[in-house]
Amino acid sequence: IKMPEDSGKKLTMVTCSAPVNIAVIKYWGKRDEELILPINSSLSVTLHQDQLKTTTTVACSRSFQEDRIWLNGKEEDITQPRLQSCLREIRCLSRKRRSDGEADVDAAGLSHKVHICSVNNFPTAAGLASSAAGYACLVYTLSRVMGVEGELSAVSRQGSGSACRSMYGGFVQWIMGQQEDGKDSLAQQVEPETHWPELRVLVLVVSAERKPVGSTSGMQTSVETSILLKHRADSVVPARMKEMIEAVHKRDFTAFAELTMKDSNQFHATCLDTYPPIFYLNDVSRRVINLVHRYNRHYRETKVAYTFDAGPNAVIYTLQQNVEEFVQVAGPGPRVVEDPSEHLLGSDGLPKESA
Amino acid sequence: IKMPEDSGKKLTMVTCSAPVNIAVIKYWGKRDEELILPINSSLSVTLHQDQLKTTTTVACSRSFQEDRIWLNGKEEDITQPRLQSCLREIRCLSRKRRSDGEADVDAAGLSHKVHICSVNNFPTAAGLASSAAGYACLVYTLSRVMGVEGELSAVSRQGSGSACRSMYGGFVQWIMGQQEDGKDSLAQQVEPETHWPELRVLVLVVSAERKPVGSTSGMQTSVETSILLKHRADSVVPARMKEMIEAVHKRDFTAFAELTMKDSNQFHATCLDTYPPIFYLNDVSRRVINLVHRYNRHYRETKVAYTFDAGPNAVIYTLQQNVEEFVQVAGPGPRVVEDPSEHLLGSDGLPKESA
Repeated sequence: IKMPEDSGKKLTMVTCSAPVNIAVIKYWGKRDEELILPINSSLSVTLHQDQLKTTTTVACSRSFQEDRIWLNGKEEDITQPRLQSCLREIRCLSRKRRSDGEADVDAAGLSHKVHICSVNNFPTAAGLASSAAGYACLVYTLSRVMGVEGELSAVSRQGSGSACRSMYGGFVQWIMGQQEDGKDSLAQQVEPETHWPELRVLVLVVSAERKPVGSTSGMQTSVETSILLKHRADSVVPARMKEMIEAVHKRDFTAFAELTMKDSNQFHATCLDTYPPIFYLNDVSRRVINLVHRYNRHYRETKVAYTFDAGPNAVIYTLQQNVEEFVQVAGPGPRVVEDPSEHLLGSDGLPKESA
Repeated sequence: IKMPEDSGKKLTMVTCSAPVNIAVIKYWGKRDEELILPINSSLSVTLHQDQLKTTTTVACSRSFQEDRIWLNGKEEDITQPRLQSCLREIRCLSRKRRSDGEADVDAAGLSHKVHICSVNNFPTAAGLASSAAGYACLVYTLSRVMGVEGELSAVSRQGSGSACRSMYGGFVQWIMGQQEDGKDSLAQQVEPETHWPELRVLVLVVSAERKPVGSTSGMQTSVETSILLKHRADSVVPARMKEMIEAVHKRDFTAFAELTMKDSNQFHATCLDTYPPIFYLNDVSRRVINLVHRYNRHYRETKVAYTFDAGPNAVIYTLQQNVEEFVQVAGPGPRVVEDPSEHLLGSDGLPKESA
């Protein structure tokens, strides 16, 4: 999409949007801080962009003096290392394509400075994976401006780890990889979004405040101090990844839901085992957790699952047919029971046999 | 202590009191439910009885028709298995002593029924180790009535696991033992109460309500479902026991305090890793935890430690010289700063250079 020339200043501009993803096998802990390589694989569901998304516009022009970025209306420091990583990697890929003789590479996007403007339609940094959608969108948009195609999850991973999973729709795994250079630490689609059309996601916003401990420093402290996190990454997650992929393939909601809840809880357990401890759940989160377990117990069937990222907001997974009822569980106050047969006291003013 | 004879009905009555203990290396999980054998060793500090204690009176008389028990003013079911275990074990030891020809064994206490009356001077079942003090006191009092002496921690353990640690003052370890019959699962004093006279314990009662999930069923579910608990018991606690005993021997408050906090957090982490998850900490508990870490960070020294049992109430360990200040940290509201040099705005109404 090219804008008409205006007083000799050609402006190339592309706008893209990218989705949020919510992990059901959690990512927590890096083995390499700079390349953003995780200590375990993870798996997420990409949410539909109708509700939550990041929108990013990248413009480039010979008239721009420097790279600049605005996030949610406020100019931010473009020199921060993660932004620089993404810009450098995309420019590098673009240069490579041009030198390989690809005709469609826009030389302007490569040699000129860029202006980046990005907005989320949801609270930033409150455990709703805003950085995942943000970096996925940044990398995707930059790639379009600079004529880069192909595997880009390894680039967005260097902006924010979980951003690599937002490069695909549906059910996505981030394979941790083994190589030191991180070239094999990539996202991969497990199933497309059409695979399980009945699956529904509800986002319960408990708090839109910024989290007290950011994910980056939080997971760093956890890696340094939590013995349980090491055990989780080494000995628990590999088996859970297999189980989860199996559950997704089979559309086995019970297995999917229980493993999702267990893994969310275990992630928050390792936060608590961190020193000093990190708390992302609050009393409202806990009430949601208890409500879900009571609901499932009532039906003797796992119909609803919760998961919490690094914040108090609950994400609920359920199937289409359960959404309406579950949403109504958060019910009204006291009411008068009209049917006299429901009185607990009999006409003698004493408890009925069954009461 | 024998009461005067009254119309031919001799009443033997003994009253004892027993202390609460607060674990610094936590007990959570049994390998044998009936004998109450733990999956890991633990270590606690016995609190002085001036503040928290259980008081128990045991009477026995030929006129009593059956064994009976009153807890905090309410008659309870004497047939519950754990009470029966304690009664049976003490009577068995008493019988053994009598058949060994010990002169001081009171035949009455052995052949007659007992009435047991017990009161706590603190909230019951709110994570303040009421059952520990309760069963320790019961076993101790019964033993006095029935003329039993010697090692009794293996008996009180069969009432409530952590009760074995309340049979001694000071710093007490409960050695998990290896035998199937539990004969080697005993409490042992690590250091007497005189060893570390500067150590202080503050109990912050956040809630006096009964806990939603009792310890017995909670730890059962944890053993069945938490992968992290198994790892903790097998691979983490053995080293921590050694470190903690070392810290107590040396009166090394920093080591003692940090390990205490880490072990409390890890215990609650395994509760969260349980399925369905168990929560004992609430938002107030979390504020106490954050306060302690901020306080220590302020002084760049670990001056205060927290620990939480199966409830939201905080137990604070600190040294005598820090008590007054720490208690005052919970400070007053806003106040006027009188010194004009502390104004943040200068006489021009603009921020001062330093503000």
